[in-house]
Amino acid sequence: MAPAGSAACVFCRIVAGEAPAYRVHEDGAVVAFLDQRPLFPGHTLVVPRTHLETLTDLPEESVGPYFTAVRRLTGAVERAMEADGSLVAGNNRVSQSVPHLHTHVVPRRRKDGLRGFFWPRGHYADETEARRIAARIRAQL
Amino acid sequence: MAPAGSAACVFCRIVAGEAPAYRVHEDGAVVAFLDQRPLFPGHTLVVPRTHLETLTDLPEESVGPYFTAVRRLTGAVERAMEADGSLVAGNNRVSQSVPHLHTHVVPRRRKDGLRGFFWPRGHYADETEARRIAARIRAQL
Repeated sequence: MAPAGSAACVFCRIVAGEAPAYRVHEDGAVVAFLDQRPLFPGHTLVVPRTHLETLTDLPEESVGPYFTAVRRLTGAVERAMEADGSLVAGNNRVSQSVPHLHTHVVPRRRKDGLRGFFWPRGHYADETEARRIAARIRAQL
Repeated sequence: MAPAGSAACVFCRIVAGEAPAYRVHEDGAVVAFLDQRPLFPGHTLVVPRTHLETLTDLPEESVGPYFTAVRRLTGAVERAMEADGSLVAGNNRVSQSVPHLHTHVVPRRRKDGLRGFFWPRGHYADETEARRIAARIRAQL
């Protein structure tokens, strides 16, 4: 999608084999490799071969192949690390360290210190606020 | 997949219209509704209509339709909340409050207090450790 940006994108360089990474999987749609700064050992990143910035940039025809790979890596990471479960997460723009779509597959253990998901959680003030926000989202679909 | 469990599963009851929720979207594959305890207003959950516990339980033919809906909701939530970005995340077993597959779509703003992604991150002790772990994951694919 943005081959002109490839040289500047570390994930494009990993996909092309021009930057080092501990690869765990690759197919026609994705390359998966260990995150260099893992939350826990086995923390894997799944990236599309094509340079795309965020999830909403992923073409519809690529959604199935990309997430089929994510699902497959999730099972493999859980089994390989003998995990109790996993976190599968992507940041779009905010907290996104590399502007090339990537999904984190993180093995989890009970009582691993991540304390729930994730932060203090709020409540809607009342039904009116919740209805208003639901309507705003529906209007953007 | 597990209709016998439906009566006990709050997300199955929401899908069936038997439990209240602020719905924002539904199609043949998914129902999406506001999380009752949002990280930020507009925090939406996307659940498959079928009762499945985790991502690895999602049949291959359902991966595309499910994540196509997740991607669509991601754009709608970002636009509706005038967000700078989003977090799209699922917990499998650990930190999973309801054992029915669900993806969180959370609108994010810069400096919204969530401080990066997410927790202290580590390093592999050396190349040998990273190689060994990559090989373990590959062996489980």
